[in-house]
Amino acid sequence: MKNFTSFADAGDYQALLNKALEIKQNPFGYQHIGRNKTVGLIFFNPSLRTRLSSVKAAYNLGAQAWVLNAGADSWTLEMADGAVMNGSTQEHIKDAIAVMSQYCDVLGVRTFPTLTDRDEDYEERTFNKILQYATVPVISLESATRHPLQSFADLITVAEFKRTERVKVVLTWAPHVRALPQCVPNSFAEWFSEVEWVDFVITHPEGYELDERFTKGARIEYDQRKALEGADFVQAKNWSSFHDYGQVLGNDPAWMLTPAHMALTNDAKFLHCLPVRRNVEVSDAVLDAPGSLIIEEAGNRVFSMQTVLHELLK
Amino acid sequence: MKNFTSFADAGDYQALLNKALEIKQNPFGYQHIGRNKTVGLIFFNPSLRTRLSSVKAAYNLGAQAWVLNAGADSWTLEMADGAVMNGSTQEHIKDAIAVMSQYCDVLGVRTFPTLTDRDEDYEERTFNKILQYATVPVISLESATRHPLQSFADLITVAEFKRTERVKVVLTWAPHVRALPQCVPNSFAEWFSEVEWVDFVITHPEGYELDERFTKGARIEYDQRKALEGADFVQAKNWSSFHDYGQVLGNDPAWMLTPAHMALTNDAKFLHCLPVRRNVEVSDAVLDAPGSLIIEEAGNRVFSMQTVLHELLK
Amino acid sequence: MKNFTSFADAGDYQALLNKALEIKQNPFGYQHIGRNKTVGLIFFNPSLRTRLSSVKAAYNLGAQAWVLNAGADSWTLEMADGAVMNGSTQEHIKDAIAVMSQYCDVLGVRTFPTLTDRDEDYEERTFNKILQYATVPVISLESATRHPLQSFADLITVAEFKRTERVKVVLTWAPHVRALPQCVPNSFAEWFSEVEWVDFVITHPEGYELDERFTKGARIEYDQRKALEGADFVQAKNWSSFHDYGQVLGNDPAWMLTPAHMALTNDAKFLHCLPVRRNVEVSDAVLDAPGSLIIEEAGNRVFSMQTVLHELLK
Repeated sequence: MKNFTSFADAGDYQALLNKALEIKQNPFGYQHIGRNKTVGLIFFNPSLRTRLSSVKAAYNLGAQAWVLNAGADSWTLEMADGAVMNGSTQEHIKDAIAVMSQYCDVLGVRTFPTLTDRDEDYEERTFNKILQYATVPVISLESATRHPLQSFADLITVAEFKRTERVKVVLTWAPHVRALPQCVPNSFAEWFSEVEWVDFVITHPEGYELDERFTKGARIEYDQRKALEGADFVQAKNWSSFHDYGQVLGNDPAWMLTPAHMALTNDAKFLHCLPVRRNVEVSDAVLDAPGSLIIEEAGNRVFSMQTVLHELLK
Repeated sequence: MKNFTSFADAGDYQALLNKALEIKQNPFGYQHIGRNKTVGLIFFNPSLRTRLSSVKAAYNLGAQAWVLNAGADSWTLEMADGAVMNGSTQEHIKDAIAVMSQYCDVLGVRTFPTLTDRDEDYEERTFNKILQYATVPVISLESATRHPLQSFADLITVAEFKRTERVKVVLTWAPHVRALPQCVPNSFAEWFSEVEWVDFVITHPEGYELDERFTKGARIEYDQRKALEGADFVQAKNWSSFHDYGQVLGNDPAWMLTPAHMALTNDAKFLHCLPVRRNVEVSDAVLDAPGSLIIEEAGNRVFSMQTVLHELLK
Repeated sequence: MKNFTSFADAGDYQALLNKALEIKQNPFGYQHIGRNKTVGLIFFNPSLRTRLSSVKAAYNLGAQAWVLNAGADSWTLEMADGAVMNGSTQEHIKDAIAVMSQYCDVLGVRTFPTLTDRDEDYEERTFNKILQYATVPVISLESATRHPLQSFADLITVAEFKRTERVKVVLTWAPHVRALPQCVPNSFAEWFSEVEWVDFVITHPEGYELDERFTKGARIEYDQRKALEGADFVQAKNWSSFHDYGQVLGNDPAWMLTPAHMALTNDAKFLHCLPVRRNVEVSDAVLDAPGSLIIEEAGNRVFSMQTVLHELLK
């Protein structure tokens, strides 16, 4: 593994998953890997889970960590190549990233989409600049179009809780009050459409189709009830439209997950990457039910990060 | 010890005090306790002493630490159970706290009072939610009505500097320019009214009576000069009214501690939890006198925290 | 070494430089020095390089570190002695610094100049207060008039890359869009004017003369082209006027470093402390040329800090 930014970087996903399950059983057993190593973490927007789980993962591995809130803690960054920097930006991303690479052994970076310029977002222009200028391995802590550490944590969670050899996993769109990125569902589709022991179904209202480069031919079912039938795992998440880029095309409250929806499933376990808008995306009754794995899933963010750090630093 | 939120949680205060004095003599001698442990610290408002002393305490114990400024670093939190989260709050406290519990072995949390809704504050509704949802031990880094790590540090300081078997300890109200919480004096009273070798006196202008659940029958003396007579230790602190909740009932500058006040005492040592408004609450001449223990007291915040971490992690 | 705030504190600069080069060869070889030590870092304004390189230096040395953004993370500080603190400042610097000294073994502090009151800045009133109240060794992370860790890193870089026994080092003023402090050029002059194996030249438009207490009789050449002739190292940096204090007296774009300027030199290596306004101070073609050492120079910030920490903690 050279960087970790997408499913492709994971290489043999089953081997990586097995490693994660092994590390979770023995979280402090690999500290020779992290000794004298420093994990740098840069956030261009707020974070709770990613920030804290990444720090914990570094500590578990015997490494140190630093966190930088770009903008607030440091300088405002210029993104354009060749810019004459006589305006408000104080440092070019190429210098900032090359310099930060001097202060760590692996660099985690969170960027975010514009949600207005689809080409810029889907070409991952900001993140690719970071990859270009970094001189240490880079981990995506979420980029304009992907959130691979989340999807890997979801895979760990499904693997831990599955009761049968094969499982049906459903990704369902859920209502929200704001226009959200597609990164989490993109990555979820990118990963789960490839897992051999998963029957993967995506359900959403018409117009919310994800980019086919992520769904890769996965079954799309517009009837949420039909999609949920027999599901072993249900992951709910809101996203804005990819085709009508960044738009909220409607927010039908019938799509909010409730116990009535879950009753259609095979006593499915419930997943959500959090933060969740309670009683908008999903009802309290689903989130707080015994079958809800949202806290375990968040806990597995430590082990997806720790496994990736292990692979990059070993 | 299961959590540390009040005097009651301290259990045998004399044993805990002895442990603190022992740890202070040998601060790095207990690192087997903290090894592979992570202390999470969440602040809902600014902090200097608590933040830094807690981090230092974790390091002394061989543990790691992370700090989260809630709101600035992460998402805005919803406090109401059953809320339909279609407004500005982005994550429910129940999810945030349960998730943060996944990323640490003990969780320190600072909340603050409304100073407008006495019931909400004195029922510790926010802090109790945190206790309810946390799945690791919780340490109060100050809550709406208490600041137990401060009082424990004060007790360590008094124990270190007392010159006689029994000592007279006076808590005196002091003027200020803002309406401040009652947490520090509440906790000070809750602790010192129980210490067997302390004669405890509270002095303040009429109207500033603290909640009797904290003062527990301690002697209250409205005449500040009379209260100070023969004192071995004087702790000064401003607070707003409990009975006329959150109000500043008057700010008589005669209550500002000066050398003339200290001359009434038994050459008393001076305490203040800091930050202090110099020449408003207390004059420079008192704060900078040889008998002022304000820096030693702040230094003991490391050892009150380290002792509590030791008890919770051992 | 008692504190590290200026060239004078460095003592024998050649011995310190040799130590730095030795530590860089064996960065984890001195962890007995940092064991159980905590490095406190306080910033009164944003930082990227200093913040992260200082943290990495502490980690390399086996120490722990904490970072405080003064103002944002903690209380607003009062600077005036004897102030009646009935306004907006919440804690006196004397208390804050004495308290922070309780929570670390060495304290790094960044302050900044007013750029309006030259006496206040050049008497280092804020930094001297910090020195006065600290009870642990203090490291300047940049003050109103100096940035010694930067100059020390520059010296390490020049020593690493010099190809001849003696070298010509040129400090050249460069245009900028804002009025910047004189700390970096002051310190650069304070250090390089003393290095025996360096021929040191300063070039800038008339009116940008630095304080002679820093330039100490160094050659000043107003003709930039003449100054650059035969240079082995060129350090570019903008600064505002010292004599017409804090003013921008002109911003002649001809002073922007370009390949045409560099062609006058002895194939000089290029230095800049960063952040750099690309294509305003220096053209991309110079910054991105093989002879540009800006990233190596930033990397050496780790080793200047680590060497200073080593000396203060040993």
